[in-house]
Amino acid sequence: MSAREREVLEAVERLRRLRPKLKDELITLAHGAGGRASRVLVEALFLEELGNPVLAELEDAARIDGLALTTDSYVVKPLFFPGGDIGELAVNGTINDLAVSGARPLCLCAGFVIEEGFPIADLRRIAASMGEAARAAGVPVVAGDTKVVERGHGDGVYVTTTGIGVIDEGVELSPANVQVGDRILVSGPMGDHGVAIMIARGALELEVELESDTAPLHALVGDLLASCEGVRWLRDPTRGGLATVLNELALATELAVVLDEGAIPVRPEVTGACEILGIDPLYVANEGKLVAVVAREHAEEALEALRADRVARDAAIVGEVQPDPPGLVVLETSFGGRRIVDMLVGDPLPRIC
Amino acid sequence: MSAREREVLEAVERLRRLRPKLKDELITLAHGAGGRASRVLVEALFLEELGNPVLAELEDAARIDGLALTTDSYVVKPLFFPGGDIGELAVNGTINDLAVSGARPLCLCAGFVIEEGFPIADLRRIAASMGEAARAAGVPVVAGDTKVVERGHGDGVYVTTTGIGVIDEGVELSPANVQVGDRILVSGPMGDHGVAIMIARGALELEVELESDTAPLHALVGDLLASCEGVRWLRDPTRGGLATVLNELALATELAVVLDEGAIPVRPEVTGACEILGIDPLYVANEGKLVAVVAREHAEEALEALRADRVARDAAIVGEVQPDPPGLVVLETSFGGRRIVDMLVGDPLPRIC
Repeated sequence: MSAREREVLEAVERLRRLRPKLKDELITLAHGAGGRASRVLVEALFLEELGNPVLAELEDAARIDGLALTTDSYVVKPLFFPGGDIGELAVNGTINDLAVSGARPLCLCAGFVIEEGFPIADLRRIAASMGEAARAAGVPVVAGDTKVVERGHGDGVYVTTTGIGVIDEGVELSPANVQVGDRILVSGPMGDHGVAIMIARGALELEVELESDTAPLHALVGDLLASCEGVRWLRDPTRGGLATVLNELALATELAVVLDEGAIPVRPEVTGACEILGIDPLYVANEGKLVAVVAREHAEEALEALRADRVARDAAIVGEVQPDPPGLVVLETSFGGRRIVDMLVGDPLPRIC
Repeated sequence: MSAREREVLEAVERLRRLRPKLKDELITLAHGAGGRASRVLVEALFLEELGNPVLAELEDAARIDGLALTTDSYVVKPLFFPGGDIGELAVNGTINDLAVSGARPLCLCAGFVIEEGFPIADLRRIAASMGEAARAAGVPVVAGDTKVVERGHGDGVYVTTTGIGVIDEGVELSPANVQVGDRILVSGPMGDHGVAIMIARGALELEVELESDTAPLHALVGDLLASCEGVRWLRDPTRGGLATVLNELALATELAVVLDEGAIPVRPEVTGACEILGIDPLYVANEGKLVAVVAREHAEEALEALRADRVARDAAIVGEVQPDPPGLVVLETSFGGRRIVDMLVGDPLPRIC
């Protein structure tokens, strides 16, 4: 069997997985990791029970009556980490889900589940950080709720933020727009957030200076859309990293995403930490990075537009959309080989966001 | 000192508490109970750090650009109880926060924090119950998120739902509309939900047949507003019960709310259970009941409009707004006495919603 035949067989197998069955009896951490198990849980349980056409699109934000809506629960551990904390993350992460849907964020709501015994000073620090991030982004937190659970039934604080945005006329970002030949861009180095969290947990026996990349992306997206035609689809590669969002793209389009390993920016500290942890940086979460699919003829223009913004000065073109193998992500390695980048299995980095 | 003088002194003390100071160092269950401690936490911490004019109104739903937004985290224990479960509660409770703001609910978002090891069958039951409640109410769940926390760091599942609604032209419900002489109506017996939860926890050594009253109220509110003028303000008396929402009204208006104890509908089972538990039914949560303040001349009309709906067939006029003592809720007891119904202190019924 040739490599090509094997790829096609794998693609068929992959497409079969499009209608997943939920065989597990108990929830595992993998169900929360954003990879295959999460997808199966969402499709075979939540979509089935809650199903409606808007939810079924499974985009980062739902679109209804010209509004974009998105909700995210944050359970990151530790609550405070180099470069940010759960409060800032809960503001920026939800703003970014709106931004990559092409929506202008209007406001946020926040629900807090707090554990009995949690220090008020820490809660204030988190709220202050949310307030600062919200003011910096120009997106106010307009509604909230606070619940308290008994000691031992939470983990300090969990925050759920919901974002409401407005989609301007003419903006339509969708996997349906993606065509063969389109280029894949990322706005900067991959994996900073996830590795910063692992370092904050003391999981690494080394001194690495690395901060979470948490940042709001709505201004970057606004500039990109205003200055550049041919932007097909955007995502922020959080849980499950670049590999996961591109797998979702490949599945939705039934096209192939071919990545050039050498072109993907990854900081040496992240590469090193991932080697020690035995994980692939492509699966590691980012919290201030954009993945953009742009028409070939506008790719350089988009790259310039991204690099003009401080948060994306290290943007790069990292791959392209090809017809084969359909539904798969393929990495062309620096050594001239090719390997399939599968969907995330298990959860190597639990509670990263 | 006469009873009247004492009341006035207490009122002054009460108004002083309007600018609360947060003296606690650690979160306690009382901070989540919806009473005084919750209010202090919200005003002295969240408002201060997240502050903006919309949040500062502290209504059940925020109003921005013609939209009503509300968010609620549900941590009810047990997850399944007579008359409902956390899924149904999370749908109806959030719909009701929109409804009492005079908004037509448009859609919901839901964030799930699930504990590792939670049975998938139970999660499906919860999602099915949400789906059923959402379809029954005609309010779809259009966006969601799922996170998993390690065994021992959650409690089965916590659900945060956010509701988005549309406020029709001309509808304006606000404490600012409330006037001396207005009547206070409730849509049915008080305290069913809270006592049903206590029974489900096995906290009572008696066999009581009682179900949670969880129900969506948007149709009831729509009918009331369509058929009756003079509706000033609505609330759903959840955490902290009738006493808490009326205290909030008295504080916001700087008027007195005078209740007629004999007119307040409470099921004998609830009265009995509350006596055993040593709590007052006026502080017990409801999840399908409405409190309405209506102009005196329209009160009977409003009562009829409520009673025409099955969920409010036991509606009653239970009190009125008076000028004195300002900022206080006073109960005229069945024995001809008067007592002040203070804000909830502590948390006699934790994790009720």
